[in-house]
Amino acid sequence: MIIVPENQIAGLITPADCLVAVEGVFASMAKKSAYNFPVIREAIGHADALYGFKSGFDRDSLALGLKSGGFWPNNVEKGLANHQSTVFLFDADNGRCRAVVGGNLLTALRTAAASAVSIKYLARKDAKVLGMIGAGHQSTYQLRAAVEQRPFEKVLAWNLHPEMLSRLEEVARELELPFETVDLDRLGAEADVIISITSSFAPILKASQVRPGTHLACMGTDTKGKQEMDPELIAAATVFTDEVAQAVTIGECQHAIDKGLISKGDIVEIGAVITGRHKGRSSPEEITLFDGTGVGLQDLAVASAAVELALSKGTAIEVDF
Amino acid sequence: MIIVPENQIAGLITPADCLVAVEGVFASMAKKSAYNFPVIREAIGHADALYGFKSGFDRDSLALGLKSGGFWPNNVEKGLANHQSTVFLFDADNGRCRAVVGGNLLTALRTAAASAVSIKYLARKDAKVLGMIGAGHQSTYQLRAAVEQRPFEKVLAWNLHPEMLSRLEEVARELELPFETVDLDRLGAEADVIISITSSFAPILKASQVRPGTHLACMGTDTKGKQEMDPELIAAATVFTDEVAQAVTIGECQHAIDKGLISKGDIVEIGAVITGRHKGRSSPEEITLFDGTGVGLQDLAVASAAVELALSKGTAIEVDF
Repeated sequence: MIIVPENQIAGLITPADCLVAVEGVFASMAKKSAYNFPVIREAIGHADALYGFKSGFDRDSLALGLKSGGFWPNNVEKGLANHQSTVFLFDADNGRCRAVVGGNLLTALRTAAASAVSIKYLARKDAKVLGMIGAGHQSTYQLRAAVEQRPFEKVLAWNLHPEMLSRLEEVARELELPFETVDLDRLGAEADVIISITSSFAPILKASQVRPGTHLACMGTDTKGKQEMDPELIAAATVFTDEVAQAVTIGECQHAIDKGLISKGDIVEIGAVITGRHKGRSSPEEITLFDGTGVGLQDLAVASAAVELALSKGTAIEVDF
Repeated sequence: MIIVPENQIAGLITPADCLVAVEGVFASMAKKSAYNFPVIREAIGHADALYGFKSGFDRDSLALGLKSGGFWPNNVEKGLANHQSTVFLFDADNGRCRAVVGGNLLTALRTAAASAVSIKYLARKDAKVLGMIGAGHQSTYQLRAAVEQRPFEKVLAWNLHPEMLSRLEEVARELELPFETVDLDRLGAEADVIISITSSFAPILKASQVRPGTHLACMGTDTKGKQEMDPELIAAATVFTDEVAQAVTIGECQHAIDKGLISKGDIVEIGAVITGRHKGRSSPEEITLFDGTGVGLQDLAVASAAVELALSKGTAIEVDF
């Protein structure tokens, strides 16, 4: 059994590696070679924790297994991240546990890779201005992965608490990108690509604030009730997602579906664009929107990549199991 | 993170240790301190494998996690067991992976411990004759665990293919117990305790073959469609189980429920007997029947015990994770 501890991940895998892994598994999903198993999510009644699993199997790469862990809201007091996860990979040929991989940083990287994949395939080639909605820990990963996909010249950012934007500003400075804190009207009017990554339960961005040709990557909504976008904006856009079943139940699409503004059949799996079955953006004026809900297969894909990298670099810990 | 490899389990944990662990978690379940999460089971479309998870949380012992693995029917050709599983334990206080434990032998031991717990609490104290239905690998574990609960003087055994009973006979000899291959009429007429552990999809034992005062531990039925007992026998018995929800859907009770012979409310959780809330056997003539479906909490309980034993004996492998 191979062990890749959490503290090795940062030195092993890059946003570019994760993009390749996530792109591959999205393609497998669209080809129906890969599928996610039902998600388990339980409020365990201890330490206010939410615990569960995301799991799946990719017949193309033979990635089989799960990510397990959850949200422990009191961890931060103990000097630990509130989100804790571990990825377990199984040998699809014999069912033995093949690897145990620290899943905290990988979760951040695979979520960032998903919005980056959507920018790669759906944003206008001439996109110059990146709008960021949200300023939490995850926003910095989204920004780092996004800038590898287009030659952005500026970052416009909005957060409910603008004073928290300094973390994102610091990353923009490091990336040598001008950074401005703006209101949502200006963000919508000037951004070519908008990434939202908040924990909002009410719409933030209105349809009227977004101009034609924009690509939106909505990455914050992964639970029933969460919401970042006006449902009218979903209705006005061509909508793509990682997994349609999740988009309509726990993703950004849930509200537009509930209001009858769109139907399941209107939503395109991003993998279909990657494989070429769907052309993606049809015109420079089209608004494209990616509803990133986060699937177990992404976790398996980046963890598999981390294992291969650890093996090739000789850093993997091997235990006779 | 603690690793307890499969090859350590046999030297670490005894049937008696497993009985204590399983008894404890059945009691927690009856007290509603422990519960199983939904089971995931998927035919993955590769190597004819069935893969999945059984998981749960025991607030009393703080055992949190899952058993993952499944059935790989072609493993035996590769010199591996067809059933492969690994248990992952999480720290309920912070969500970090605490231990990875080989789950193959533990699965056999926890299944045997369940029927042993049922014998401990439900069989007549003067039980002398043990009837065994089934002769597969698992039957030997059931036998070894059962004999620790009553001073059995004889084993009567039946199997669809009687020539396969030699394995069980060998274990009986090792336990210094007389062993006889019998037909089902004689088995039912003479046994005080009957354990069934087959892969049958049709009733084996009829109500008319079982005498008053018998305790039956039905351990083979864990899937929709499987069946070992005549539904009339279920109806004639006082029925106990590990988890009612599983008993009525995938356990031996499913058929009696489907026929309307019993209802959910007729089935008693064995944990209620362990905690003293239910008196168990009410008379020497009563037929008691335990429908052992197998729950994730059993796996977590025995794996937790194995980890504690490995730590106390100094054999646990610790990895900085």
